[in-house]
Amino acid sequence: MANSKLRVFYGTSDPELGRKIVKKLHLRPGKIKISRFACGEIYARILENIRGQNCVIIQTCSPKVNEDLMELFIIIDAMKRASAKTITVVMPHFGYARQDRKAASREPISGRLVANLLETAGADRVVTMDLHSDQIQGYFNIPVDTLTALPLFSEYFKRKKLKDMVVVAPDTGRAKVAKKLADRIGARLAILHKVREKHNQSAVTHVVGYVKNKTVIITDDMIDTAGTITNGVAALREKGCNRDIYVAATHGLFSGPAIERMKKANFKEVIVTDSFPIPEDKKFSGLKMLSAADLLAEAVKRNYENRSISSLFG
Amino acid sequence: MANSKLRVFYGTSDPELGRKIVKKLHLRPGKIKISRFACGEIYARILENIRGQNCVIIQTCSPKVNEDLMELFIIIDAMKRASAKTITVVMPHFGYARQDRKAASREPISGRLVANLLETAGADRVVTMDLHSDQIQGYFNIPVDTLTALPLFSEYFKRKKLKDMVVVAPDTGRAKVAKKLADRIGARLAILHKVREKHNQSAVTHVVGYVKNKTVIITDDMIDTAGTITNGVAALREKGCNRDIYVAATHGLFSGPAIERMKKANFKEVIVTDSFPIPEDKKFSGLKMLSAADLLAEAVKRNYENRSISSLFG
Amino acid sequence: MANSKLRVFYGTSDPELGRKIVKKLHLRPGKIKISRFACGEIYARILENIRGQNCVIIQTCSPKVNEDLMELFIIIDAMKRASAKTITVVMPHFGYARQDRKAASREPISGRLVANLLETAGADRVVTMDLHSDQIQGYFNIPVDTLTALPLFSEYFKRKKLKDMVVVAPDTGRAKVAKKLADRIGARLAILHKVREKHNQSAVTHVVGYVKNKTVIITDDMIDTAGTITNGVAALREKGCNRDIYVAATHGLFSGPAIERMKKANFKEVIVTDSFPIPEDKKFSGLKMLSAADLLAEAVKRNYENRSISSLFG
Amino acid sequence: MANSKLRVFYGTSDPELGRKIVKKLHLRPGKIKISRFACGEIYARILENIRGQNCVIIQTCSPKVNEDLMELFIIIDAMKRASAKTITVVMPHFGYARQDRKAASREPISGRLVANLLETAGADRVVTMDLHSDQIQGYFNIPVDTLTALPLFSEYFKRKKLKDMVVVAPDTGRAKVAKKLADRIGARLAILHKVREKHNQSAVTHVVGYVKNKTVIITDDMIDTAGTITNGVAALREKGCNRDIYVAATHGLFSGPAIERMKKANFKEVIVTDSFPIPEDKKFSGLKMLSAADLLAEAVKRNYENRSISSLFG
Amino acid sequence: MANSKLRVFYGTSDPELGRKIVKKLHLRPGKIKISRFACGEIYARILENIRGQNCVIIQTCSPKVNEDLMELFIIIDAMKRASAKTITVVMPHFGYARQDRKAASREPISGRLVANLLETAGADRVVTMDLHSDQIQGYFNIPVDTLTALPLFSEYFKRKKLKDMVVVAPDTGRAKVAKKLADRIGARLAILHKVREKHNQSAVTHVVGYVKNKTVIITDDMIDTAGTITNGVAALREKGCNRDIYVAATHGLFSGPAIERMKKANFKEVIVTDSFPIPEDKKFSGLKMLSAADLLAEAVKRNYENRSISSLFG
Amino acid sequence: MANSKLRVFYGTSDPELGRKIVKKLHLRPGKIKISRFACGEIYARILENIRGQNCVIIQTCSPKVNEDLMELFIIIDAMKRASAKTITVVMPHFGYARQDRKAASREPISGRLVANLLETAGADRVVTMDLHSDQIQGYFNIPVDTLTALPLFSEYFKRKKLKDMVVVAPDTGRAKVAKKLADRIGARLAILHKVREKHNQSAVTHVVGYVKNKTVIITDDMIDTAGTITNGVAALREKGCNRDIYVAATHGLFSGPAIERMKKANFKEVIVTDSFPIPEDKKFSGLKMLSAADLLAEAVKRNYENRSISSLFG
Repeated sequence: MANSKLRVFYGTSDPELGRKIVKKLHLRPGKIKISRFACGEIYARILENIRGQNCVIIQTCSPKVNEDLMELFIIIDAMKRASAKTITVVMPHFGYARQDRKAASREPISGRLVANLLETAGADRVVTMDLHSDQIQGYFNIPVDTLTALPLFSEYFKRKKLKDMVVVAPDTGRAKVAKKLADRIGARLAILHKVREKHNQSAVTHVVGYVKNKTVIITDDMIDTAGTITNGVAALREKGCNRDIYVAATHGLFSGPAIERMKKANFKEVIVTDSFPIPEDKKFSGLKMLSAADLLAEAVKRNYENRSISSLFG
Repeated sequence: MANSKLRVFYGTSDPELGRKIVKKLHLRPGKIKISRFACGEIYARILENIRGQNCVIIQTCSPKVNEDLMELFIIIDAMKRASAKTITVVMPHFGYARQDRKAASREPISGRLVANLLETAGADRVVTMDLHSDQIQGYFNIPVDTLTALPLFSEYFKRKKLKDMVVVAPDTGRAKVAKKLADRIGARLAILHKVREKHNQSAVTHVVGYVKNKTVIITDDMIDTAGTITNGVAALREKGCNRDIYVAATHGLFSGPAIERMKKANFKEVIVTDSFPIPEDKKFSGLKMLSAADLLAEAVKRNYENRSISSLFG
Repeated sequence: MANSKLRVFYGTSDPELGRKIVKKLHLRPGKIKISRFACGEIYARILENIRGQNCVIIQTCSPKVNEDLMELFIIIDAMKRASAKTITVVMPHFGYARQDRKAASREPISGRLVANLLETAGADRVVTMDLHSDQIQGYFNIPVDTLTALPLFSEYFKRKKLKDMVVVAPDTGRAKVAKKLADRIGARLAILHKVREKHNQSAVTHVVGYVKNKTVIITDDMIDTAGTITNGVAALREKGCNRDIYVAATHGLFSGPAIERMKKANFKEVIVTDSFPIPEDKKFSGLKMLSAADLLAEAVKRNYENRSISSLFG
Repeated sequence: MANSKLRVFYGTSDPELGRKIVKKLHLRPGKIKISRFACGEIYARILENIRGQNCVIIQTCSPKVNEDLMELFIIIDAMKRASAKTITVVMPHFGYARQDRKAASREPISGRLVANLLETAGADRVVTMDLHSDQIQGYFNIPVDTLTALPLFSEYFKRKKLKDMVVVAPDTGRAKVAKKLADRIGARLAILHKVREKHNQSAVTHVVGYVKNKTVIITDDMIDTAGTITNGVAALREKGCNRDIYVAATHGLFSGPAIERMKKANFKEVIVTDSFPIPEDKKFSGLKMLSAADLLAEAVKRNYENRSISSLFG
Repeated sequence: MANSKLRVFYGTSDPELGRKIVKKLHLRPGKIKISRFACGEIYARILENIRGQNCVIIQTCSPKVNEDLMELFIIIDAMKRASAKTITVVMPHFGYARQDRKAASREPISGRLVANLLETAGADRVVTMDLHSDQIQGYFNIPVDTLTALPLFSEYFKRKKLKDMVVVAPDTGRAKVAKKLADRIGARLAILHKVREKHNQSAVTHVVGYVKNKTVIITDDMIDTAGTITNGVAALREKGCNRDIYVAATHGLFSGPAIERMKKANFKEVIVTDSFPIPEDKKFSGLKMLSAADLLAEAVKRNYENRSISSLFG
Repeated sequence: MANSKLRVFYGTSDPELGRKIVKKLHLRPGKIKISRFACGEIYARILENIRGQNCVIIQTCSPKVNEDLMELFIIIDAMKRASAKTITVVMPHFGYARQDRKAASREPISGRLVANLLETAGADRVVTMDLHSDQIQGYFNIPVDTLTALPLFSEYFKRKKLKDMVVVAPDTGRAKVAKKLADRIGARLAILHKVREKHNQSAVTHVVGYVKNKTVIITDDMIDTAGTITNGVAALREKGCNRDIYVAATHGLFSGPAIERMKKANFKEVIVTDSFPIPEDKKFSGLKMLSAADLLAEAVKRNYENRSISSLFG
């Protein structure tokens, strides 16, 4: 029987990232046609024989997340029916990750739903980055490789040789993530949390921990509308934080009022990866993008070669 | 154990149609919150207790078909986790129906994929109208009720008391559908088909059948870009069709150049149902909309009451 | 781990065809015992070690279609439990393909059922020919390779160098298939369809298209009782068709009155493939059998070698 | 929601038995059309509305077992798509029960396969009688009610007031079944088993136990070719059994040489149930048929009424 | 069809709790026999007819969690095969909840595994309390009702009319849970987290937040070996906490050194529910047990009556 | 793609047996950490990269069968999520095999349940020995290799050159197994069965067959509490069996009163394999243990090399 090769394709969610990963792998991109009909339906066709091959499809969740997901399901279906041997989905930003529990009655758990839909379409494995909660791995019955941008961030801050750093979790739910970064760069930890003292008063942000005269790094898995990370800035300043405030987050969604809020917050730097496409007009001074392409390419390669991925994160 | 009631909800694909169906059923619409986050993700929450109830969700496939489908999957997930007894999907226009086979190698079969995704999300039954091919029913393991607008169309034309009618299929694939309408209204049949005489010549439309001095009704399951139905007009005219040309199709998608093409074709009338939302600015003189809401409401009611639906179509 | 070889077995539906395919592949047939107990139950046992091998089982649907299917399910079960690596079903004529939709209420969709049963038994892939409707591919979640006898037919007719050919679809449902052949051999198209002018009159066959002084090729995916293809002959003659009438169909079932009807119709030739076993006593002068064994063998080989099959049909 | 009624249909495997059961239930038989096309394919259509109803389909495995099973799968598919609430299969004789293990390498386990196929088709519950091995119940994930003809047999023999009875198992595999009957009627037990003393000698039947001057009842779950039950008669006679020999078995398949062999064996009586259709020409003097229809009807009724079935058998 | 009643059974994990719940429901306990064979295998048999009934099985995860789970799977299997209409599992303490992600490479996600095994065995719904992470709900495809002991705890503390309370999360991962309690009782929040300043030094517990002169309530979802909750006491005292320290946790596992550690920590009170059985010899002065039986019984009742459960928690 | 190697791990059910098998395969044992938390939960982690490898996990069912099974499910889950290519379970003694049918109403079929749970966890294949009933193979959809200790036993007895042997089945259900051994060693067959002559009398064991002056070998698939095999000794002696009595059984569970009973029965020898761990204090004079490790290692090797296993048993 002929040998199984590695074939890497990418969808339309972020072709730039796709190209980068394929290039790092010294491969040519898999030939695929993806288009939209006038009626809005997606058409996809694999343009080369993939029988018995190990196929990879790179598709992150961009601002058009529903289009991205449907396109992905359709590409997977095409691959499955074209007799791919294995189908690996590389989804750096996993959409709907925040809907990972019923916060109120009769809500969906859309994160699990997306996992189910991916398995139904025919995915054999998922590679992703910094899931909103670690538990989401358990939404899959297929293997999931969860990469993390933590080494990128810690290396970045170590090179800066900052002093008196405190890593700040923007709310209690993020305390654990903040602790991981704090541990890696030898910083202290502080946590913001909102309290509504009385029922008819507005909520006040408390700073739990010591931030006076500290260089602050607010961290989160993603920056969406930037409300969470910017809300606490006044409280931090009030508590005596008179030095630079950095923000570090894997996924830079920058939705709605995000850019405006971050500018106003006057952060020293906002550091994100390229797991999510950021259009030119959303790039602002102070924004630093660290590329995750190396990491993702290495994970694809190791998967293909049956080598350990966890060892990447020592 | 408490009794199971009927609860009818609708999504955002076509609230107008939803309201009409609910009203015909003399019910109040099920309470549901559906919104979009700034990042593009959909949020849905059922706002009333539905434990043990027979839930219906009305969601057609509009021009934003991928949003409609993802929204539908998410609503179904919420219903399932909220302990609905049964979940019936009413999808008058079934999206991706035309991708129902591999016309070229390594294509997906997106129609089957959508069926699989609906079953995975948790649908128990589907009610739809005039599927692009009858075989799509077989893509489901759950029961499917396929309604047809044929009685609406035949009644409409009978009331007009037109003479010397010929029903024209716009291509060979539609011949069977055209025959059904022709049989119902006692008309003759003609078929258009394109032929490329030689390899480097452009295709020519042949008229198979007799259209001279006839009132023509071109019929199809849907009008998308209107290319298929307008392409043959010149050929029909050339073959002696010197009377009115009507068009009758269940689903009026009117995508891209459709409106322009149809105006240019100078049809006497274009008759569609409201299975697909048509914005005001796409409505043109000569467009007749027949409402399928009565039919859909009746199907929902009969489903709930365990009464025959096929008997609706005699 | 030891290498995976190709092992080709065949059932009792058409051993002749099985032998031909195996021979073209330069293999010896896989050793298998298949017998019937006096009580009617089927017994099957694989007589050689197939652990980790790529197994192929050739079984068409013959006049004893239910026996053929049950035998096939049982052989697949035996292969699965004997640790075959993959199980490919080669079913040139796919039984129950015509029951691919609910033409009347409360009918089964037996085509989908057979697909489900094959997947449940353990099939990993299906190779078949000229399905009654293309949509049937979508009844499977596993890959399906649909071969077509069109190249065999078009080559055959080209060699004959006939002139003024018209390809005739025996009813509107077959118009699309007829168009494909017409396009390939550069012929015109005509379509037969039955009309019942008034309720208490018998149906009359209309000829849609021009057949006068033409050499006619009636085409269909299969000839069952030959009713469809012979019904229109009188109408064709009446419309001025005074030359030879050929019939070309992939699957020659020749059930019930078929032979008698075809003889009476006085066709110049009836051309079918060997996808379906035709006993000696059903062979008549004018019957031409084109062997599909080359095509099927090539598909099996390319599957095993991970090479494209679609490229076979250019 | 409308009430769920009981609707009982039967297939073509044994209409006589179907009629008897329906009559005992004081119901009219469910309306269904079942026919064969000339090509051998089965067509089935439910002729009355069954939405939301509790449907029962009676289909035993007759000598045309593969036809019976395929017909059953097709009927179940039709019922499922016609929105039956539940589908109960009543299969008095469960086909392929003897292929319930791999007696040799690379055999199928057809009994499990049939269970899988039934579940895939859409069966919700199975009612059957005296399975060849009790373990077959475990082949299903759906509930199975296993009825037994033991009370019919024991009552029959008790009424005869025979003396000095010994129940004989025709081989070691049947010893357990024989013991159950022996216990019920207060008889002794003996077991036949074949021994091949040396490799090149033919097997000799040993009688394990005491049969001299005893009235013998040979028992088995089924009589197929009657080889097992007749082989030991000579040995029994030789061991001093000089009285009547009865045979009692639930399923009278009477295949191949069965009738001839049983006549030759000169049994006093052969007692079977009507779980399997016996044509008139196979009925011989000495054959007694006990009807299981009462038992089967009662099981159907209790299922519908949520009453215990096990209590039927004390 | 007969009516569906509610039948409540309990396993051997905590019969005391089972009896309490059944009593609150004014039912008699469902009759079931559960025993162990000498070889360690579990035997279970339902001793009353449950056809078509709504069955509930109460089984928490006690210190013999693996026995409890296997016993539960076996009971569910018995119920399914005995034709229960629905099977609801009431598992107040959900075992393996902490293995809800891969904290290290090549770990299992046992929480998801248990969910899968429950669904495979045949559970239709799960009722549980204060899951270790909310995301675990998403491990199920079936509906899950997650109750919480928060109202019990907040009511308890409100009745005490304590002043200057601060709720302390024992580590960053619990910050979110602590915030919920703090919000309910109008207390401040503090968080403990361990820091290893240098690689070869031992970890030091930091107190993030203000605890001086405060009454402290340490909270967690469960107390296992009590390491987490007792580790920080010295740090709290050092930071000026000179008043009473309370502990509140839903599940009191009290494993290994727990009792000893808690006694040494000199807590004012340790408050847990009866979701987990606590043997007499583990009860110590200062231990307060709040019964969750009312809550669980109410949830079972509302499930049966199709009434909202979320409304219980306002 | 890198090559797939064989990696053999073992759980804690019987490390001794695991070590023996690994040694016979000339491999080093796979690195795995298995531990118990104080609360009773199991923790397992694979300590080496197994991506794309053929993994084997050896775990028999010991007296702590439920712990063994849960541990096994958890290890399989870890392997699956760590991207093992295939997972083969070697379970010499298959637990819950005796609960392979509903002997009484509303019992579970725990043997099938265990098969389902193994498949759900992620097992791809099972290797086991002398199942309590052959039918259990059919509980799996995945391939099962059933080895047998029969060759070990027959070789053992042949070496002894005993004369006038009779193999005795301890009850009617075991007659078939006894026959197999009898055939292999050229012995006669006898069967014990209990009879309750009248309702208020205690049961008496009958000896069916001839044992006078014979060397007896009682055989069974397992010795649990040894009741079955010791009950008949008195009856055998009474019937004139005045020579040695041997016992041969694959699985030596020796539960509860087994040792005491066997000593009292004064068997010449009790021969079992090491499929089940026997602690030192249960070993008694007269106990002979034949190792199945060679056989199991050979089966693992042949599986990996795609060679026939059935040929091992000629």
